[in-house]
Amino acid sequence: MADTFVVIGGDAAGMSAASKAKREQPDLEVIVFERGEWVSYAACGMPYYVKGAVESLNGLVSVTAAEFRDERDVDLRTGHEVVDVDPEAKTVTVDAGDETYEQPYDDLLVATGASAIEPPFDGLDLEGVFTIHNMDEADAIEEYVTERGLETAAIVGGGYVGIEMAEALSARGVTVHLYEMLPHVLQPFGDTVAEVVEEHLREQGIELHLGTAVSGFGGDERVDTVRLENESVPADIAIVGVGVVPNVDLAEAADIELGPTGAIATDEYGRTNYENVYAAGDCAEARNVVTGDPDHVPLALTANRAGRAIGQTVTGSPTPIGDIAGTAIVKAFELGAARTGIVDEERAREAGFDPVSVTISAPTRAHYYPGGAELTVTLLADRETSAVLGGSVVGREGAKRVDSIAMALHAGMTVTELQNADLAYAPPFSPVWGPVLTAAKVLSGKLE
Amino acid sequence: MADTFVVIGGDAAGMSAASKAKREQPDLEVIVFERGEWVSYAACGMPYYVKGAVESLNGLVSVTAAEFRDERDVDLRTGHEVVDVDPEAKTVTVDAGDETYEQPYDDLLVATGASAIEPPFDGLDLEGVFTIHNMDEADAIEEYVTERGLETAAIVGGGYVGIEMAEALSARGVTVHLYEMLPHVLQPFGDTVAEVVEEHLREQGIELHLGTAVSGFGGDERVDTVRLENESVPADIAIVGVGVVPNVDLAEAADIELGPTGAIATDEYGRTNYENVYAAGDCAEARNVVTGDPDHVPLALTANRAGRAIGQTVTGSPTPIGDIAGTAIVKAFELGAARTGIVDEERAREAGFDPVSVTISAPTRAHYYPGGAELTVTLLADRETSAVLGGSVVGREGAKRVDSIAMALHAGMTVTELQNADLAYAPPFSPVWGPVLTAAKVLSGKLE
Repeated sequence: MADTFVVIGGDAAGMSAASKAKREQPDLEVIVFERGEWVSYAACGMPYYVKGAVESLNGLVSVTAAEFRDERDVDLRTGHEVVDVDPEAKTVTVDAGDETYEQPYDDLLVATGASAIEPPFDGLDLEGVFTIHNMDEADAIEEYVTERGLETAAIVGGGYVGIEMAEALSARGVTVHLYEMLPHVLQPFGDTVAEVVEEHLREQGIELHLGTAVSGFGGDERVDTVRLENESVPADIAIVGVGVVPNVDLAEAADIELGPTGAIATDEYGRTNYENVYAAGDCAEARNVVTGDPDHVPLALTANRAGRAIGQTVTGSPTPIGDIAGTAIVKAFELGAARTGIVDEERAREAGFDPVSVTISAPTRAHYYPGGAELTVTLLADRETSAVLGGSVVGREGAKRVDSIAMALHAGMTVTELQNADLAYAPPFSPVWGPVLTAAKVLSGKLE
Repeated sequence: MADTFVVIGGDAAGMSAASKAKREQPDLEVIVFERGEWVSYAACGMPYYVKGAVESLNGLVSVTAAEFRDERDVDLRTGHEVVDVDPEAKTVTVDAGDETYEQPYDDLLVATGASAIEPPFDGLDLEGVFTIHNMDEADAIEEYVTERGLETAAIVGGGYVGIEMAEALSARGVTVHLYEMLPHVLQPFGDTVAEVVEEHLREQGIELHLGTAVSGFGGDERVDTVRLENESVPADIAIVGVGVVPNVDLAEAADIELGPTGAIATDEYGRTNYENVYAAGDCAEARNVVTGDPDHVPLALTANRAGRAIGQTVTGSPTPIGDIAGTAIVKAFELGAARTGIVDEERAREAGFDPVSVTISAPTRAHYYPGGAELTVTLLADRETSAVLGGSVVGREGAKRVDSIAMALHAGMTVTELQNADLAYAPPFSPVWGPVLTAAKVLSGKLE
């Protein structure tokens, strides 16, 4: 068993691993190096801080640095950046600001996270142009919105962040223009979800510009325009949310192997090509339960779970990090949209399947019961094996029902098996055949 | 393939089978005998009609008799009671009111449903004493409540029906006393759920009398008191909801075998001991996915699904009716309560397992996100195999999340597999470790 467990990165994966390892083996020395000051924070909550639904940024912190140090006895060193890893010597080099030192380790976890992609735009450095990938930036955006009388915002990118920020800024009274280069927003959710969400965004007053590339921003010190191919449009603030890239420079420099997605390659225990070096969270790959291939889905649950499992593994209880299904859910004003597995036929064919799919709409409650909403469900299966490949749901309530599809993926269920699942029914909660079962029933008919 | 498919009973199982069979084989003669006038109605919706949340009883009908006849071409004969089955001669004897005749069949489905238990109470025949197990009775209750100035109601039985009727009558301005003989309401949901629901019922003004046996009702023509062991309590209306019994007299008389639960025994295709005689719905057993044993859980989804499968089987596509998990959900005022599989250790031991269980409470949304509620989750597993055996959830939102546990049961998952499921997370919908995953995580720790 290890004597010193070193963790690089103090967010979800890193702090989960550190806490779990210390709990399992109290005499283990657990040192976490975090280059920033925030630890264990919910990046996913930042748009809601900007929106005004969360009062303080501190509210997004699950466990404070003081709690990690005092209650969990983790040697957490914030403001400490690891600048080099030597897997042969089993040391890391740490820049503590005023000094640089070497720290030996027995086991190492690389949990360096991901960074917002900075596209090659003119004017990215202008005041009022933000990405939103850390707490300081969330703070800066909130302050910018509060202190200036903003009229219009340009959001570049129609992914989670773009849509959540559209809702947030709209709630703050700003007219939001959302620019998406692709034909649809929320590309990983598939076209059906995208179309429902787009209609809703327009109803909510968002100016959607699909298939529209942004080339940069204009302004004098401060941003005042967003530049498109043939025109410039006024914008008092710009948020760039065009995706993230895993932070792998440190790993690459140490010859820690990357996988096909560009994130750090790991085995089922989260181990890299070096036996005592693990990677988890937004910088690492995990195995996709549908394809069996390495995948990079930088989301919080994956990070937490993998970190926790590695904390167990390094303290003597080898624990698989678990496969991922790429399950995701996002709120877009009044809608919930969710996806899991493979949600479109083209992607399914690329992965070697012969896909069959259906899209249905069904109510979330009994037809006679007040309230409720239509839930639109897309479900995919493989023609040869009838295995469920994935699906999406979108509607004003019930988006969490995607979990039943995710469970079917983890279980390797066929469509008929999903159709036959005994899910909960009572009029206030579902029709007898709820939306997911209805989709399975219809898809099962197509497979016959 | 069959030429004539006869169905006894025109509700969920019967009409699902008739519709599916006719759709699959349009030249098949499909005759449904229903002794009443209502067909394909949602008994589960009746309390909401009494409550006033559903405007008309007709609103509870999924497909009308006219639609079955005209659009689906089903020979639906309401007011026709089958009084005898001769499985050797393959005929049924039908009492059509003005005449009695024999109808030959090639395949027969017995879907005779269940009836409300009538306990040996004095005064059951008094005006104002109701069970609630068919549409005419729902109508009569609603009328009774509307036409008379009721002050107090006595509800006997704290199962689904009792609790839903407590909510309904309370909404109508009646003071409700609920009498339950056992120490807790909602016995099949386990003690944890019961305690949460009981506290909530009291908060909502329901007078709960647990461990209190009712012996009958008093009154002169009309009920005015409910009789307990040592006292009589005023009551302007009484609803008796102490469970249901399968309607098996017809089957028994025809030597159709019953199973250990007292309902009609069936195989995986819903077949009885006679090859061409099927049984489905509230009168029939189905196999429990956790125990592998025959079980009797008279709920709507089971009935619909089995009926539909039998409709396919009799038209040449043998289709299993599917196992059941005993999944159920009920609304109790602001709470949702749900259960699946085995929810208490005693029952698990009876079924031959070595149970380990946990009960946790966790929020339905991220801790910093507005709204949300605590969901209390109980999860059981078998110590030897780590297989999930069942669970329950109760809270002000998110009770449908029991579906993830039900899926685990169908998949035969271990607790660790459930813990590792990639369920949907975003702050407005769940904490990173949602309630079900948290329960699995804690239970997994206990199993180590």
